[in-house]
Amino acid sequence: MALKTGRGAEAPPFLVMDVIAAANARAASLPPGAYPDSLGILRMEVGQPGSGAPRGAAEAAIRALQAGNPMGYTEAFGLASLRARIAGHYRDRYGVTVAPSRIAVTVGASGAFPLAFLAAFDVGDRIAMAAPFYPPYANILTALGMVPQLLPCDAGTRFQPTLTMLEKLDPLPAGLIVASPCNPAGTMLSPEELAAIARWCHANGVRLVSDEIYHGLSYGTVAESTAVAFSDSAIVVNSFSKYFSMTGWRIGWLLLPEDLVRPVECLAQNLFISAPHVAQVAAEAAFDCREELEANKAGYARARAALLDGLPAAGFDRIAAADGAFYLWCDVGHLTNDSLEFCARMLEGAGIAASAGVDFDRERGSRFLRFSYCGPEAAMVQAPARLKAWLGR
Amino acid sequence: MALKTGRGAEAPPFLVMDVIAAANARAASLPPGAYPDSLGILRMEVGQPGSGAPRGAAEAAIRALQAGNPMGYTEAFGLASLRARIAGHYRDRYGVTVAPSRIAVTVGASGAFPLAFLAAFDVGDRIAMAAPFYPPYANILTALGMVPQLLPCDAGTRFQPTLTMLEKLDPLPAGLIVASPCNPAGTMLSPEELAAIARWCHANGVRLVSDEIYHGLSYGTVAESTAVAFSDSAIVVNSFSKYFSMTGWRIGWLLLPEDLVRPVECLAQNLFISAPHVAQVAAEAAFDCREELEANKAGYARARAALLDGLPAAGFDRIAAADGAFYLWCDVGHLTNDSLEFCARMLEGAGIAASAGVDFDRERGSRFLRFSYCGPEAAMVQAPARLKAWLGR
Repeated sequence: MALKTGRGAEAPPFLVMDVIAAANARAASLPPGAYPDSLGILRMEVGQPGSGAPRGAAEAAIRALQAGNPMGYTEAFGLASLRARIAGHYRDRYGVTVAPSRIAVTVGASGAFPLAFLAAFDVGDRIAMAAPFYPPYANILTALGMVPQLLPCDAGTRFQPTLTMLEKLDPLPAGLIVASPCNPAGTMLSPEELAAIARWCHANGVRLVSDEIYHGLSYGTVAESTAVAFSDSAIVVNSFSKYFSMTGWRIGWLLLPEDLVRPVECLAQNLFISAPHVAQVAAEAAFDCREELEANKAGYARARAALLDGLPAAGFDRIAAADGAFYLWCDVGHLTNDSLEFCARMLEGAGIAASAGVDFDRERGSRFLRFSYCGPEAAMVQAPARLKAWLGR
Repeated sequence: MALKTGRGAEAPPFLVMDVIAAANARAASLPPGAYPDSLGILRMEVGQPGSGAPRGAAEAAIRALQAGNPMGYTEAFGLASLRARIAGHYRDRYGVTVAPSRIAVTVGASGAFPLAFLAAFDVGDRIAMAAPFYPPYANILTALGMVPQLLPCDAGTRFQPTLTMLEKLDPLPAGLIVASPCNPAGTMLSPEELAAIARWCHANGVRLVSDEIYHGLSYGTVAESTAVAFSDSAIVVNSFSKYFSMTGWRIGWLLLPEDLVRPVECLAQNLFISAPHVAQVAAEAAFDCREELEANKAGYARARAALLDGLPAAGFDRIAAADGAFYLWCDVGHLTNDSLEFCARMLEGAGIAASAGVDFDRERGSRFLRFSYCGPEAAMVQAPARLKAWLGR
């Protein structure tokens, strides 16, 4: 007899992952010398730094393994030394005092979201977020029986939610997810805007989830600030995947409000046991790798500048304020009304992989695409010339 | 205003994790020479091999890191080479042909369960399992809004469910979880019993989830068999944490029925992105470390024999059939009616940490405890003498 499948079986794919597979296939079939710049397919679809973990982090892992560290389970919230180091990071970077007991080391930010959502929300609860948004926010919520409530945003508010939008919500949602810098738009909330949103959420019983995984990667147009500075009830999500360039190590953290510390600990014991031990060792060392990490960031800044300089003449002249992260969110409504098809043609014709906007905004994303510029700098800066040739400008 | 918390905030702790913390504290405060055997606290509470990853696995990780592998995200289902190797494992070990496309590499078995449950079941669905059981089965299901349905089992059926029990269920549950060898009892289903259960589940539209993470660790009383040999609709969960001794690497796998491959892939893309890359590299190499792994197993076998020989005279004479895994499930109803308090006294008095049965069977667990014997062999075999002295036998 045919067996049933669950509601979770209807979770949409995170399309970026499928684009990666398509770009891999295209790269594998590419004839030699296909492009005069000899750079092959330009990989601008992934939110993954081209650099690996900083050398000092990898070396710490190597040393621990050579010393015979058995890499057993850690406590559910992670190594005490790493949690203390993360608390020190809040002191050093933001001037905020955070007890290490409020810090949970997680299996990436991906592992942090289900813990946060399950501890704070119930089946049927609505959780608001700006659209466009990071697809797994909505897909994880939906898989857990919760309901994403989209706040359509555009260039007028830098693709970020505003207090005015929140005040119009009736009934109020159970939670709000914000991200600054955000994915896919790369835009930020000013410290004043984040403070106002955090205080409004706290006053109105709306649980704020502040995704701060692109902190450390901003380019001076807006100051970075953390929600924990403005709210005792906010949940902060962060990760070693972006600034610290440790994507595949699967290591991140939650900064929890006091009322959620024990609930999240119980959930983490059951759902994860612990984050990967070797990644915890490497992550702790990554805090001592500022020079290498700042050099990576300087490379993103140069790629960003080259793209902002060259893309308009190539036909991509409607780009969201590129405050941070390593993304450019481009309105290509003058070039296509089907960005999925457009991206497929661009991969074929220009040899550039990018993410179609429909992944990030199912309603309006067919006129947007996202370029990621964290790949090798030499490849990133070549994109405008390729696009110009392809579009015949 | 006080913010709400979700139903998930009521997830009970996985008590073993708390026992670990208590044993750590007791070990730290122990005066030198507290025990004549100089072995300090005997750690029999954790389901974690005392050995680390096999040397060849750690060395593969070291080599990859030294070579500068950036350890980025892998595809959501893992490295193709590792999936092929796992498929080869089914061919070599069980004589079963499994397409690598049906294998999903996961963040441990812990990461596998939410994917399986969300893809196969819905909020409100009942999923049956024997009691006693591995606590996260029920805790994960409950956190996801699903309902564990306990089948009380005892020594009469080797603490395993039987076809007769299943046939009495009305209405039928949406799913059934079996584990052979199981945790905490260490008992197994014979191939004939597993085959009958798998066929009954398939015929009756009940999704079978077969937890096979203790495969490779059995001691000859019952033959090992995999559910995939008997059913096209069963989900198999496995892990590198037990036989392969790689707990803190957080690496496991799912063997999926065809109808759940794409749903689980979409869920995995959203919930995990990928399993830790460095752990995937190490896991692949672990398949070539049979000699070291079989030596570990021989150590467990010796510890098991010493305990089965010595525990009865120390007062622990009601032990479940110790077919596999590295656990002894002891009925201590003649010594206590509060195993939690008994374990605390045993830690204090005998210097032995064990897990109280209430973690595994909330109804009847107060008269049981679980000894784990995967710690250092020299320490494990010392337990009967300590217990005998403590209980004054």
